[in-house]
Amino acid sequence: MSEPPVPIVGGTGKLGYGLAVRLAAAGVPVRIGSRRAESATDAAERVRDVVDDADVDGAANAECVGGAPLVLMTVPFDAQAATLKDLEEALQPGQIVVDTTVPVAATMGGKPTRMLGVPQGSAAEQAQELVPDGVRVVSAFHTVSADELGDLEVELDEDVLVCGDDREAKQALAALVDRVPGLRPVNAGRLESSRLVEGLTPLLIGINIRHRVSAGVRITGLSESRW
Amino acid sequence: MSEPPVPIVGGTGKLGYGLAVRLAAAGVPVRIGSRRAESATDAAERVRDVVDDADVDGAANAECVGGAPLVLMTVPFDAQAATLKDLEEALQPGQIVVDTTVPVAATMGGKPTRMLGVPQGSAAEQAQELVPDGVRVVSAFHTVSADELGDLEVELDEDVLVCGDDREAKQALAALVDRVPGLRPVNAGRLESSRLVEGLTPLLIGINIRHRVSAGVRITGLSESRW
Repeated sequence: MSEPPVPIVGGTGKLGYGLAVRLAAAGVPVRIGSRRAESATDAAERVRDVVDDADVDGAANAECVGGAPLVLMTVPFDAQAATLKDLEEALQPGQIVVDTTVPVAATMGGKPTRMLGVPQGSAAEQAQELVPDGVRVVSAFHTVSADELGDLEVELDEDVLVCGDDREAKQALAALVDRVPGLRPVNAGRLESSRLVEGLTPLLIGINIRHRVSAGVRITGLSESRW
Repeated sequence: MSEPPVPIVGGTGKLGYGLAVRLAAAGVPVRIGSRRAESATDAAERVRDVVDDADVDGAANAECVGGAPLVLMTVPFDAQAATLKDLEEALQPGQIVVDTTVPVAATMGGKPTRMLGVPQGSAAEQAQELVPDGVRVVSAFHTVSADELGDLEVELDEDVLVCGDDREAKQALAALVDRVPGLRPVNAGRLESSRLVEGLTPLLIGINIRHRVSAGVRITGLSESRW
């Protein structure tokens, strides 16, 4: 039986495209989701342009999540609530939603080096509040540069900090991350710790602006991922 | 002329002791401060126990800061305000105070993996509000394990994220950090960004508890410190 595709909701954006490229290159089947199915199939085409044997297609967001054990969601913060509302019927108990959202102030016209305060504490906790009961949210990919993910000539060598309240859900994502060469999943604690990890994004954006780099993060002193 | 000693206010605690050990081992003269001069001289003795030719002595907090261009402050969050109040007369315009404080909830009996909300936004910004006019606060050393600093057998290999509004003050601290083998100073932006860096401490504490390590942080994609 062939492996089911990993849906990437909002996969036409930079982070979604970057993840699609890296996953496809690692042999993971991918289904890009977008509000418009046509944009999604266009994005799938762009992934095939850079990954020869990519197993990737596109569909409307709600169609692409059906039945998938794990759903990646790569929409900007100002689209998070609306997107999850659109997926209300499509998402089923037991599914895992991987939220990558960061409430950078730039979303609301502020600075990219600043964070908005989110009533729930973090974008990830807001996502957990918005998904149907029984859907488990984990958060990840806050510190990985979308540009570097999308450019296969860049050799990755950094960590992906994963937060969540469900150990099994975190492990499922960790297994997926482990398939991408150069990315190491690190258990960063409960979902509430996502507020600490989300804060790394505006910090790295500042470093990127000052040094004209695409910075990432590595936790030192950890010899292995130990999941 | 001999180099003036670097004061470490609250240097009898674990972080202060660790910094004293590393700086002394790097040939930097150090003056440990404590509320009680006797505790400070005891701590200086402990530094000399592990660093043979350490140039280190101890004094009461207010006495040790006089005239030093750069003052390290390593008190816990619940002692920060009182300590700065005690130093009100001793600190002079032009001096740099390096705040290492992190408002972990454990300070108030909560979890060490959680942060307290600070009205000013961060411990560093609170420090800036409390020092006399003309004293410049930078923040640093939030992510470096006190235990690893204090154990010279541990080879360090991690970054020190430095926040502050005064470029010259940050560079002065960066020059000091650069003298410690295995520590790289990274410009982490303005003082308000300290709230993002301070959040790394409870995150690393969680990783330390789960994996029984002394984790630190490294920013990837930066080839050099570039100050």
